[in-house]
Amino acid sequence: MEKIQVLGICGSLRKSSANMGLLRYAQEAAPQGLDIQIADISGLPFYNSDMEEKPQSVLDFFKALEKADALLLACPEYNYSMAPALKNALDWASREPDNALLSGKTAAIMGAGGGMGTARAQYHLRQVCVFLNLHVLNAPEVFCNAFAGGFEDNGNLKDEKIQKQIGKLLTALKDWTLKLR
Amino acid sequence: MEKIQVLGICGSLRKSSANMGLLRYAQEAAPQGLDIQIADISGLPFYNSDMEEKPQSVLDFFKALEKADALLLACPEYNYSMAPALKNALDWASREPDNALLSGKTAAIMGAGGGMGTARAQYHLRQVCVFLNLHVLNAPEVFCNAFAGGFEDNGNLKDEKIQKQIGKLLTALKDWTLKLR
Amino acid sequence: MEKIQVLGICGSLRKSSANMGLLRYAQEAAPQGLDIQIADISGLPFYNSDMEEKPQSVLDFFKALEKADALLLACPEYNYSMAPALKNALDWASREPDNALLSGKTAAIMGAGGGMGTARAQYHLRQVCVFLNLHVLNAPEVFCNAFAGGFEDNGNLKDEKIQKQIGKLLTALKDWTLKLR
Amino acid sequence: MEKIQVLGICGSLRKSSANMGLLRYAQEAAPQGLDIQIADISGLPFYNSDMEEKPQSVLDFFKALEKADALLLACPEYNYSMAPALKNALDWASREPDNALLSGKTAAIMGAGGGMGTARAQYHLRQVCVFLNLHVLNAPEVFCNAFAGGFEDNGNLKDEKIQKQIGKLLTALKDWTLKLR
Repeated sequence: MEKIQVLGICGSLRKSSANMGLLRYAQEAAPQGLDIQIADISGLPFYNSDMEEKPQSVLDFFKALEKADALLLACPEYNYSMAPALKNALDWASREPDNALLSGKTAAIMGAGGGMGTARAQYHLRQVCVFLNLHVLNAPEVFCNAFAGGFEDNGNLKDEKIQKQIGKLLTALKDWTLKLR
Repeated sequence: MEKIQVLGICGSLRKSSANMGLLRYAQEAAPQGLDIQIADISGLPFYNSDMEEKPQSVLDFFKALEKADALLLACPEYNYSMAPALKNALDWASREPDNALLSGKTAAIMGAGGGMGTARAQYHLRQVCVFLNLHVLNAPEVFCNAFAGGFEDNGNLKDEKIQKQIGKLLTALKDWTLKLR
Repeated sequence: MEKIQVLGICGSLRKSSANMGLLRYAQEAAPQGLDIQIADISGLPFYNSDMEEKPQSVLDFFKALEKADALLLACPEYNYSMAPALKNALDWASREPDNALLSGKTAAIMGAGGGMGTARAQYHLRQVCVFLNLHVLNAPEVFCNAFAGGFEDNGNLKDEKIQKQIGKLLTALKDWTLKLR
Repeated sequence: MEKIQVLGICGSLRKSSANMGLLRYAQEAAPQGLDIQIADISGLPFYNSDMEEKPQSVLDFFKALEKADALLLACPEYNYSMAPALKNALDWASREPDNALLSGKTAAIMGAGGGMGTARAQYHLRQVCVFLNLHVLNAPEVFCNAFAGGFEDNGNLKDEKIQKQIGKLLTALKDWTLKLR
């Protein structure tokens, strides 16, 4: 049976981002049958419909999305909502005819940030996913405190409790994606 | 008495943006005592705390914000939430110590878009303003359909009903700002 | 093959409610394989964990929920959020051990109200459904203006465009429920 | 100078509610110049426009609202949104002509609940307050964990950190109300 292809997208552009750390951990810990790639969105310009030709960074991102069966969204929170870089990546992704790069795919959300673990941003992201017709997992919700010693300086995840939660998230994403295939 | 200085920020980067059209109309129709400038956010990079020096575009934006007593936010809606360029401008603005460029200032919101006139994005924006400690007008809410003939091809606003709503919004912003001064 | 059992819940308690009109129409127009019953929530008290014994109205509601594979939620909007009667019905429903009356079931949402057709309330309801682990259809979204001549005085739906939307909603609910079974 | 009259409204109907405990503490700790009364909403029926005569419980609630300059809302969270009893009280309150019982008044929000301290419900409540034209304090936000030993069995607040936060909330409400008078 073919592996489920998951594309990870991280909303933070920082080198030592804890959210990127979550994605790297997910990549290592992926259960059998799940292959996780991480998108490079660092070169995407702000979406602007005046742009006549899509830059290479957008074309590369689209190619990665095409292969994906599911998305794994690492969602920071800035000022009680989403990081612009993540929202912008999804806005670009939505511009193919019939929303073909996203519509009907499954998605899982996790995030690292302040005390509420990016919850406020995640609920905004869930509303975005309604329009994008992404089928987002209800549970588990993964809300990580980035400032409580659970991450190394380079963003790597070392907290075992969070590691377990991500394990559960990935298993749930796998089951959910198989069910909806 | 000194004029109230209002800084308009438009979340769309398109040349012929209807949201920019709303701001231009507001500028022309500003009631006595209100001076409206429009920020140039087209050069702002995505916020990234790795950046050690603020680029000139950020410094210019900060200078414009310093002078402002109030914000006038033209809020597009992409995929049921805010335009990244608007959110990113606010994220940058929030990075001065003690949130000094925003905290305690007043704000008014308007937007042009699909059938609900960017309402979904505006409620997300209102949640952002809670954290930014902006005092947003409750009413009037200005939800404009950008596809119903109310705008010229270059984005200029010609719909008289919307023009009147913006007139009311500006008067309310003036009163609200005077009250909170 | 067994019919899919759908339980309709209407958030308005008015006799001539347009939201109840949507449910009655859905009942008549149900596609083959879908059986729609309408819950009676008019006797439910406000949820209060002090109550030691569940009143009969709650027990009856639970019995109706037990049989249901899917929910059809008719969601009014009061003051930019949900009607308390609908939220309260869901709060009661959530009180069985392991959320057994709701968890994993599918749901569809529709609503009749002011100009935005209860959209604001529906997004709040969607957030509630995340916790309840209901799998809500992303599309179609059914937003009906209750004051534009589409309903008879007794709440019956006569607008053909809305009737078609409900037809699509029910077909989508059927397909979605079969997929997730 | 006349005292500021504050009406506390608690969304939980439980006898030993922690949210009611927050209100009782606020009442004791009210700064000079602030008088806090607690509304009795336990008898309010679900709002239903079919009701031709307002029951006595509604009339009494309206009388309490009339005297109030400001609201202090104790907001539980059930299933990721507001408690129906609180929303219903506000829905009733909004039914006077021109929304005269609420429009233009100030409000402060606090809540006790699970790990996020009712944050999700509070953001929904804030959206409701936009329509009600209540001027809600941006800060401080008071999110209390009801299950971390900070409350006595009868709901009384004993956690000193939360007590201080409520002190700050009340001072902020006083200043905000004086400013907007």
